[in-house]
Amino acid sequence: MSRFWSSVVHDLSPYVPGEQPKIHDLVKLNTNENPYDPSPHVLAAIAAATDRLRFYPDPGATVLREAIATRYGVAADEVFVGNGSDEVLAHTFQGLLKQDAPLLFPDITYSFYPVYSRLYGIRTEEVPLDAAMQVQIADFRRPCGAILLPNPNAPTGVALPRAAIEALVSEHPDQLVVIDEAYVDFGAESAVPLVPRHDNLLVIQTFSKSRALAGLRVGFAIGQRPLIEALERVKDSFNSYPLDCLAIAGGVAAIKDEAWFEQTRGRIIASREKLVRDLSGLGFEVVPSMANFVFARHPGHSGAELAAGLRRHGVLVRHFAKPRIGDFLRITVGTEDQCSRLIAVAPELV
Amino acid sequence: MSRFWSSVVHDLSPYVPGEQPKIHDLVKLNTNENPYDPSPHVLAAIAAATDRLRFYPDPGATVLREAIATRYGVAADEVFVGNGSDEVLAHTFQGLLKQDAPLLFPDITYSFYPVYSRLYGIRTEEVPLDAAMQVQIADFRRPCGAILLPNPNAPTGVALPRAAIEALVSEHPDQLVVIDEAYVDFGAESAVPLVPRHDNLLVIQTFSKSRALAGLRVGFAIGQRPLIEALERVKDSFNSYPLDCLAIAGGVAAIKDEAWFEQTRGRIIASREKLVRDLSGLGFEVVPSMANFVFARHPGHSGAELAAGLRRHGVLVRHFAKPRIGDFLRITVGTEDQCSRLIAVAPELV
Repeated sequence: MSRFWSSVVHDLSPYVPGEQPKIHDLVKLNTNENPYDPSPHVLAAIAAATDRLRFYPDPGATVLREAIATRYGVAADEVFVGNGSDEVLAHTFQGLLKQDAPLLFPDITYSFYPVYSRLYGIRTEEVPLDAAMQVQIADFRRPCGAILLPNPNAPTGVALPRAAIEALVSEHPDQLVVIDEAYVDFGAESAVPLVPRHDNLLVIQTFSKSRALAGLRVGFAIGQRPLIEALERVKDSFNSYPLDCLAIAGGVAAIKDEAWFEQTRGRIIASREKLVRDLSGLGFEVVPSMANFVFARHPGHSGAELAAGLRRHGVLVRHFAKPRIGDFLRITVGTEDQCSRLIAVAPELV
Repeated sequence: MSRFWSSVVHDLSPYVPGEQPKIHDLVKLNTNENPYDPSPHVLAAIAAATDRLRFYPDPGATVLREAIATRYGVAADEVFVGNGSDEVLAHTFQGLLKQDAPLLFPDITYSFYPVYSRLYGIRTEEVPLDAAMQVQIADFRRPCGAILLPNPNAPTGVALPRAAIEALVSEHPDQLVVIDEAYVDFGAESAVPLVPRHDNLLVIQTFSKSRALAGLRVGFAIGQRPLIEALERVKDSFNSYPLDCLAIAGGVAAIKDEAWFEQTRGRIIASREKLVRDLSGLGFEVVPSMANFVFARHPGHSGAELAAGLRRHGVLVRHFAKPRIGDFLRITVGTEDQCSRLIAVAPELV
């Protein structure tokens, strides 16, 4: 508290990210990072870009936007890039989701959404997931200013098919619908192909998960030109160069290495399916996941108890002490070895 | 324009950064970059950090804050770091400079300040520089909510001594005074030593100029703990990880290489003094500069005409088509060779 604070600061409840432990021998299954390294081309591109460090980066990150546009079959001016999808989301909240009517998002979802809403003074209404932790798009049929939905949802991992997303977008022609696809590459259907026929759809993705670049901070949005222009206007009123020259170069290399992307995400999907089987065999209830994590609870034990027990065995998972999900663990899908270590120690706890 | 835009977007007038030309044989004296490469230790640190790309960075960038704190003789929790000083400034506007009474800054100054003010709905009053392009702190004796002053000022390069800054801070004990020291390392006196005795002082610096890391996006603020806490609250409500793992590692290496810093800034200061003499010899009026740029006009020619003529000769400088300064050029101090090329072509234009 200080008399020099702007009034908004007093009301903020900042987001708390998952722990980044200083000890490295933990099995780290708590922040949905990719267990495999990024494409070797990324390292080469970063090394090659270090001779430009004394110059400002291209403020428009043109080569990166073009590479993303090519990958997703859209125009470069239908792509916005930012410092991780968190920054892209922040600008989206300020530039597009702040409306007179309330913003709708699920009651159980990415816990940064209420934080952004408070930062920008946005009215919100939480739409409850059903008892099976599913989003029911019929529940979004209510007066609103905009809709924000992660697909797959987090921390549940549950995905809607593209047809359901299109139904949602079509039912709200006068409201923007933002689909946060941070985890889409692990088996769900992207809404990007819907962008050409819906001016009210914005899709946000990240390089932090399927591209194994959480440390490089690259995220992007795809939408029709007027939506991208809003994000550019906010960004250019906030920070001209949110992506450094190494992030731009590394991002381009990552998006171009399709073979690496396919191979690593395939391994993660296979590990997830085995992890689900193994957890089920131990008596866990596992929510069906299309993400690089699973959301699971054990009928005999509290989530806090299980998370603490796993940590004592050197396995870090995420637990949210929140209504409806306090008994669940969110477990990142690691390598096969990492998943095996979790499964090896779990019997002592359940 | 789009019906999906938040109302604030319609009123934005985004900042326009200096050109980053795609052709590399231009003598680039337009964006105040350092003409020398960063410390070789920076490249080594970046290379060593690439094995952590798949992990999220430390959200608190602790090692970087500690290195900056050590360098400036403050505590780590009196340091805030961001994605370039532009992001630090943005959070400062939102978290500290938005008050009921107007924010004061000079009429001729960093042109991003009015842009931030509009983004966050902050009332402002511009305080005119005097006829010699100097800040007169007596002119800031008026009711206000906060004060923002670059020292040295940009694009003039004129610096106030530390004693004048302390007078300003002392005259406004109930208002925050933010000193933007982007260019302080080229001969001006930093206000950082005043921080322990003034709870209303925040000093902002950048690695983009004197540390030759414009491409890496590292900026920081130093102030007493409650001010830093406001910035942390805003940052943690906006983006948990604005500095990627390479920027953190490179920043630490840069701040620790004091010898490189001293050597390169010394060369730039020497080049500046020679450039001022040479420009004066050609009939230019040069504002006394403590920065890595000079602000100069020629009595016989308009600024637009001179900037266009220099560009035809392959020399890029910055020209602002604005009241009071339309006849001036802002010329970055380059290497001795770059400055010589400017001086070699200038006689054809004046």
